[in-house]
Amino acid sequence: MKATIERATLLKALSHVQSVVERRNTIPILSNVLIEAGEGSIKLMATDLDLQINEGVAAAVDQPGATTVSAHTLFDIARKLPEGAQVQLSAAEGRMAIVAGRARFSLGTLPRDDFPVIAEGELPTQFELPAETLKQIIDKTRFAISTEETRYYLNGIFFHVAEGVLKAAATDGHRLARVTVDQPQGAEGMPDVIVPRKCVAELRKLLDEVDGSVGVSLSGTKIRFDLGQAVLTSKLIDGTFPDYSRVIPTGNDKILKIDPRSFAEGVDRVSTIATEKTRAVKMGLDRDKITLSVTSPENGTAAEEVPGEYVSAPFEIGFNSRYLLDILGQLEGDAVEVHLADAAAPTLIRENDKAPALYVLMPMRV
Amino acid sequence: MKATIERATLLKALSHVQSVVERRNTIPILSNVLIEAGEGSIKLMATDLDLQINEGVAAAVDQPGATTVSAHTLFDIARKLPEGAQVQLSAAEGRMAIVAGRARFSLGTLPRDDFPVIAEGELPTQFELPAETLKQIIDKTRFAISTEETRYYLNGIFFHVAEGVLKAAATDGHRLARVTVDQPQGAEGMPDVIVPRKCVAELRKLLDEVDGSVGVSLSGTKIRFDLGQAVLTSKLIDGTFPDYSRVIPTGNDKILKIDPRSFAEGVDRVSTIATEKTRAVKMGLDRDKITLSVTSPENGTAAEEVPGEYVSAPFEIGFNSRYLLDILGQLEGDAVEVHLADAAAPTLIRENDKAPALYVLMPMRV
Repeated sequence: MKATIERATLLKALSHVQSVVERRNTIPILSNVLIEAGEGSIKLMATDLDLQINEGVAAAVDQPGATTVSAHTLFDIARKLPEGAQVQLSAAEGRMAIVAGRARFSLGTLPRDDFPVIAEGELPTQFELPAETLKQIIDKTRFAISTEETRYYLNGIFFHVAEGVLKAAATDGHRLARVTVDQPQGAEGMPDVIVPRKCVAELRKLLDEVDGSVGVSLSGTKIRFDLGQAVLTSKLIDGTFPDYSRVIPTGNDKILKIDPRSFAEGVDRVSTIATEKTRAVKMGLDRDKITLSVTSPENGTAAEEVPGEYVSAPFEIGFNSRYLLDILGQLEGDAVEVHLADAAAPTLIRENDKAPALYVLMPMRV
Repeated sequence: MKATIERATLLKALSHVQSVVERRNTIPILSNVLIEAGEGSIKLMATDLDLQINEGVAAAVDQPGATTVSAHTLFDIARKLPEGAQVQLSAAEGRMAIVAGRARFSLGTLPRDDFPVIAEGELPTQFELPAETLKQIIDKTRFAISTEETRYYLNGIFFHVAEGVLKAAATDGHRLARVTVDQPQGAEGMPDVIVPRKCVAELRKLLDEVDGSVGVSLSGTKIRFDLGQAVLTSKLIDGTFPDYSRVIPTGNDKILKIDPRSFAEGVDRVSTIATEKTRAVKMGLDRDKITLSVTSPENGTAAEEVPGEYVSAPFEIGFNSRYLLDILGQLEGDAVEVHLADAAAPTLIRENDKAPALYVLMPMRV
């Protein structure tokens, strides 16, 4: 294998693929990137056995061939090479030479044939989503993904079609985020899938560089995202997402209207006093008078009156301030509806009944 | 105590004083800031028993008095208050109330009388140093301060006067940095002092906001820096700094001339291959041909030829790449002298014989 590639091109592609590679690996070849030089282009591939990324870049190939080399080391080298450098990669006899200007590197390689590739199998469901839509879906739901490994079926975003729309949901049992978008052509009859958190994170990073549309192909066990130069393939979480629609309250009749920005600032301020352990903020609702407060035996007390429209019966309810801020941070516009029932009931937060996103937050005893 | 102060003024002063306060304290009052309201101003003070900061700020004082309250909590509150807010502080009966706009906080206080103050005693040596000079001294030496707690006498910058100049030195046994400046008026006969690392760090932060001169007052055990609104008082390290002048080589006759910028880039590139453990980079010197190289059994090899003037006998020498980069990063100008003797001897690095800063680096076996 022998090829020459522009440093900036190599760096950008490596920055994508090395991000999939875990820092510590018990299987040595999983630390490596597969480099395949074909006609006029190089293909880079990395995997952690659950998630795989492929990226093709233009290169002057003198001699086609393939090898694998440490992804992080090659990325670090590319990062430190001078701007505008032409990087020559050549592999032979278990080593890869990297030459750019007066710098020469030699790295150990592992054989291309030992590199594990995720077998995609058939991906019968295929549709396109605007990159912008996919970004919105991820941004508005990912914060609610559970990190509890024992509840592995909550460690991702759940996608399913129902009632002619595509729904994406994430929950950790304390809060739920759901986004609804028009069902794309080709998604009818698609299986319910849970896309793992790491795939979501890598996908989100790549989306920043994509205009236009993303091709989505999936089966019940795998999903592939075509993002132009990069292709991301992931195993899906093998589990059953709970029937979350049952926790979305429909009869909450106490409506509070707030500006999410100024409300969030108030929550942030009073929660200065909250301890890491509880993080509880109390919301006192009175006729058009909303008071946020925190009491901490260690630190003291804080209270702030925040603007809001409220005409129902007065009561008090507590929330985890971090969870509340996460949700408020996702809401656009300057008017948001908070649908409350009582101090123990799930609370619904959304911009209005036409907004694509809705959030459910469990209260805390305060 | 009752006073009103502009949020920005309070925030800036608190950002200085809270930085001295350690995150964890076994003595509760050390977590607190002392707030003293006098006529038209408030004085804030914080300490860790070794280092103390005082800062005075303008305030409208309704009722003079003093109390102490959690420095980090008060700082966090000030940070989150809206820009332009007027902050009212009032203390009574073991609590301090903080009111700004519609937000109210109440924090527990500890009595002013329990707050420990460092007794400065007599500080007979007094002189002024331009803030810019003090910044340079710190920037060019602090990286060499030892972090080994057992060698506590190396955990600071050593200041002493000799031969009509003020010298500042720091070393960790592997590298040494020394800066020489004109002896300021009043420094004659000053005792040798070791200023602890934490004092150096806090002083350096404060210097960014100081124009003009800094007043320095010291005895054999304490030092005080007057920085306008802020005053920093520190205990000195009670130990003997080694006679470092003996490790500064005077007879190194092999002179290498390099551009520190391009040389550092080369070192940085080849050391991509170095492991965290060794970090060794080899320098091969030949007539006007300098080759940097790294060999790592795990990662591979790297080599780069870098420009440099050299006419003495060829030889090879190894350095810790991190230490070499630290020194190269401090050197200004585009030509630097490296004075070498052999592969085992301390190496001297400096801009030229008139430069205020010089560096000594111990080689590594490679």
